[in-house]
Amino acid sequence: MTDPMDEDFNRRANEKSRHRKAMRDRMLSTKTIEKGLLIVHTGKGKGKSTAAFGLVLRALGNGMRVGIVQYVKGKWGTGERPALERFSELVTIRTMGEGFTWETQDRARDIAAARAAWDASKAMIEACRAMPPAYDLILLDELNIVLRYDYLNLTEVVAFLADRPKNLHVIVTGRNAKAALVDAADLVTEMTLVKHPFQVGVRAQKGIEF
Amino acid sequence: MTDPMDEDFNRRANEKSRHRKAMRDRMLSTKTIEKGLLIVHTGKGKGKSTAAFGLVLRALGNGMRVGIVQYVKGKWGTGERPALERFSELVTIRTMGEGFTWETQDRARDIAAARAAWDASKAMIEACRAMPPAYDLILLDELNIVLRYDYLNLTEVVAFLADRPKNLHVIVTGRNAKAALVDAADLVTEMTLVKHPFQVGVRAQKGIEF
Repeated sequence: MTDPMDEDFNRRANEKSRHRKAMRDRMLSTKTIEKGLLIVHTGKGKGKSTAAFGLVLRALGNGMRVGIVQYVKGKWGTGERPALERFSELVTIRTMGEGFTWETQDRARDIAAARAAWDASKAMIEACRAMPPAYDLILLDELNIVLRYDYLNLTEVVAFLADRPKNLHVIVTGRNAKAALVDAADLVTEMTLVKHPFQVGVRAQKGIEF
Repeated sequence: MTDPMDEDFNRRANEKSRHRKAMRDRMLSTKTIEKGLLIVHTGKGKGKSTAAFGLVLRALGNGMRVGIVQYVKGKWGTGERPALERFSELVTIRTMGEGFTWETQDRARDIAAARAAWDASKAMIEACRAMPPAYDLILLDELNIVLRYDYLNLTEVVAFLADRPKNLHVIVTGRNAKAALVDAADLVTEMTLVKHPFQVGVRAQKGIEF
């Protein structure tokens, strides 16, 4: 660890920092478009839905209205819903489906649930064409999973999301995001698993896994 | 898209799904250790702190007590704090520092702020040795940044975190996580940037970037 009182080192470090700030300010000044973003969280790591909840929390803290469609029931833990209930005047949740895909053995029922969830999603998005819009942010949680299993028509879904109201932010989560969706998205983050406690025998725990 | 009424296809799909569930149930049954996890969110992508906020939200929804130390002031948006205030009986926030490293030009002041934040972190962690523990989950937001700049002694920090109370979950965020911290962690996720709206000229927006 360098000496915090090393004045020569500090002067050079401060100069470098000033330069970084100037570069960053210049970069940010070129970013002038304001519009609703299509955001995708994908990858095999943890944190896809969790980061979406973080965005939802931040939006709610800003007084924004949030709509959530849960494509896969039973995927949520015991904590999300009671937490969101503290913002009940701002948030609407629609739950479809009968449990995580791993848990169901009825494909026809899964497809019906996916289509019902998509109909609910479309209705939420359409309600944002009104003034004022019904929502500022819509989370389509685990939509990628039903797209992956071809439970919905990918072309129709991507076209509908691309044609959303101009200021509406939409977040889509789930592993194996389809390329067409990634192409249409403004912001895509891949969560990569580096190390998982299952690898060393630790079981799922309240507040962390659920 | 396959026909949802294709009975032969559905039967095979359902059988595959049953098999997956059995494999997963067997896998989960081997995971029996319950303990507080050391979780690291790193990488250049978005969502490191946001996913940590999602975990915080879930924990708060479960009635767990959460402590947060913000190593870099000014990094948070306008939404996080008002959202957390809805859980004021469960959450404690300590803010140190004078702004994001990009914004400061005073290294000696940054080091003093980092050390004050670490002292506050240690005090929070120590308070979890009491019964009942003061917190169930502690978020050290952007600790990786001050470790990267060698503002704290890495060996001391890692040893202290590794020796935390047995049931306490600790989350550390920030890019460029040090290898020694990754080695000590139970769960490490790397957020990788696939596509960013800055790349196409879109500016930072309320509820998304801040």
